[in-house]
Amino acid sequence: MIYLDHAATTPLDSDVLKAMQPYFNKLFANSGSIHSAGQEALAGIDKARQQVAHFLNCETNEVIFTSGATESNNLALTGIVDASDIKKPHIITSNIEHPAILEVVKNLKNRGVEVTILPVEHDGIVNTNVVQKEIKDNTILISIMYANNEIGTVQPIKEIGELIKKINEKRKNKIYFHTDATQAAGYLNCDTKSLKTDLLSLSGHKIYGPKGIGVLFVKKGTKIKPFQYGGHQEFNLRAGTLNTPGIVGIGEALSIVKKNRDVNNKRVQHLRDKLIEKTLKEIEGSHLNGSKTKRLPNNANISFDKIEGESIMLNLDFEGIEVSTGSACASGSLSPSYVLLALGLSHLQAHGSIRFSFGKENTIEDVNKTVEALKKIIKRLRLISPIK
Amino acid sequence: MIYLDHAATTPLDSDVLKAMQPYFNKLFANSGSIHSAGQEALAGIDKARQQVAHFLNCETNEVIFTSGATESNNLALTGIVDASDIKKPHIITSNIEHPAILEVVKNLKNRGVEVTILPVEHDGIVNTNVVQKEIKDNTILISIMYANNEIGTVQPIKEIGELIKKINEKRKNKIYFHTDATQAAGYLNCDTKSLKTDLLSLSGHKIYGPKGIGVLFVKKGTKIKPFQYGGHQEFNLRAGTLNTPGIVGIGEALSIVKKNRDVNNKRVQHLRDKLIEKTLKEIEGSHLNGSKTKRLPNNANISFDKIEGESIMLNLDFEGIEVSTGSACASGSLSPSYVLLALGLSHLQAHGSIRFSFGKENTIEDVNKTVEALKKIIKRLRLISPIK
Repeated sequence: MIYLDHAATTPLDSDVLKAMQPYFNKLFANSGSIHSAGQEALAGIDKARQQVAHFLNCETNEVIFTSGATESNNLALTGIVDASDIKKPHIITSNIEHPAILEVVKNLKNRGVEVTILPVEHDGIVNTNVVQKEIKDNTILISIMYANNEIGTVQPIKEIGELIKKINEKRKNKIYFHTDATQAAGYLNCDTKSLKTDLLSLSGHKIYGPKGIGVLFVKKGTKIKPFQYGGHQEFNLRAGTLNTPGIVGIGEALSIVKKNRDVNNKRVQHLRDKLIEKTLKEIEGSHLNGSKTKRLPNNANISFDKIEGESIMLNLDFEGIEVSTGSACASGSLSPSYVLLALGLSHLQAHGSIRFSFGKENTIEDVNKTVEALKKIIKRLRLISPIK
Repeated sequence: MIYLDHAATTPLDSDVLKAMQPYFNKLFANSGSIHSAGQEALAGIDKARQQVAHFLNCETNEVIFTSGATESNNLALTGIVDASDIKKPHIITSNIEHPAILEVVKNLKNRGVEVTILPVEHDGIVNTNVVQKEIKDNTILISIMYANNEIGTVQPIKEIGELIKKINEKRKNKIYFHTDATQAAGYLNCDTKSLKTDLLSLSGHKIYGPKGIGVLFVKKGTKIKPFQYGGHQEFNLRAGTLNTPGIVGIGEALSIVKKNRDVNNKRVQHLRDKLIEKTLKEIEGSHLNGSKTKRLPNNANISFDKIEGESIMLNLDFEGIEVSTGSACASGSLSPSYVLLALGLSHLQAHGSIRFSFGKENTIEDVNKTVEALKKIIKRLRLISPIK
């Protein structure tokens, strides 16, 4: 199998699994118990919290463990709205956010929140000036993803963070800034002080960590309400018995990402660039979607004229090459990617797109085999395509 | 270590871990992906969903995987309220529910929901007649736990379920019945058809399954809204990438519970009964809290006159015996257990209580050693106690 779907999920790193192992059935006690067995579990969680805090350049009490990025996003957006004393609060987001933002925003809109959904430029980037123009007196939250899950475009989070900071200095009701860093966490600097974010979401399973665990960074002093009620865990902000193995795993995974980031980014970028170069050169009617430069080093999203992405994907699968037509969350849906439509692609072009997302176990042979398979498949599919 | 805190959490069963293992880094793909790697992960989830459905005697599309019982309870209660078209809906619960119910109810009350919190009898049991008396025209939901986490008392869920079913036949707006079966799942029959529940919550880590995974049973036709928004997972009722290893683990754990239930219950009940018998006989001023007969086979909650539970617990811990003063979720809190106060215990008595909760790896030697340690510790503590 050649797995080129790392944006959907990653295998668990063997060192991460090794770190988790003792917490399954040796140091298994409830970290909320005050006996020594409980305290041993808590020590594992404390270490992981430090690893996460180190990754985010923040304090340990600004790290909230959740069940994943979807919960982190729900907590961030709903929690800020619920804690606000503005009568009709206003929030701003972009039209290429993940459903775990857009669907939460839709729900908040149904509850009476005012919503502005920003467009992106043709290269899939949010324009900071457009963000600034949409800010109103009742704006309480701006949520812009760090990197897109389908096209890998990287947003100017630091620039937007600095803009909001400057604006906040001159206004009474603070605007909070949230970023969904789920796709970015494996590749980009997530220093929350430098990015000037108040809230940041990330997930374990996109960074060779476990599934079912995530983090929400919540800056000290942020006015936020819990989303999930119950016990007093996570500084009263997230109820539920702590998932010790998951927490230990995400701490270890982030620690490994930080350590190897430069070397790993260079490696996957080389593979990714080779794939783009060979594909665009050797396959007629193929186009890269999204900015060439402002994108994650592991992402290539390519449209192939006059054929369906789903057919390409299934044919590649048959050859043991795993790619995706868009986000796994939307798979099975017949409508074209809203992200690609937002870039200005036609329905037809959007339907003919494939996401290749590389990971640390991929090799140059994987690239060569994939391009060879693609050439064969696309030739065959174009022969039988009803679109001329 | 003698671990007698299984109500707080359990170690992961080695067979469960074995079932989970392939899903960490071999069958690791996103179950939402349509390529074959994704479909292999989905097959593991499908099998687990069948195991859970078998355990609950329900259909597979009535099984919703969540991050734990706390989330299941939040989804059940908030989801039913949010989907109701009654103007000021009314919900009923008991005063000995877990905080994952009581805190959700408090939040709903703040949002304008009418709430009735039922008392329990002195033996810790909810009276079905009292439930019936409190039902109003605007009642939409009754949530009563199956077994209590501190005193192990078992509620007449089937009786209440049958009552509600009968009442529903004669009224227009349906009353939904939810039970938090987190503590019960390891020991009691959870046949949802026989219990006549519409919703049932349970958690992996209380039944030798993984932490960070839970289930909400939602009966077909139940009007409920999602709690966590995002992707279309779990029949559009719970967004977020599926935690394949966790799901496979909880399926396997429930399957093992069902298979070994009768034998295991007999074993732990024998140990538990020995502990109660020896303690009450050999330690003066010790009393069992909660019903003697209507309780989980593994739970003993005992008050010791004139001393603090916390001191007993810490002294037992020093001897390598792990017990609890109440729920792990409330640990660190100085207020006496609200569950014990609800039974009519004084603050002093409630403060002097210890929960012993047995598990499948405990032996009769554990019981003997624990009672011997208790005798020594309690004698010593009473000598220095300021309470006379």
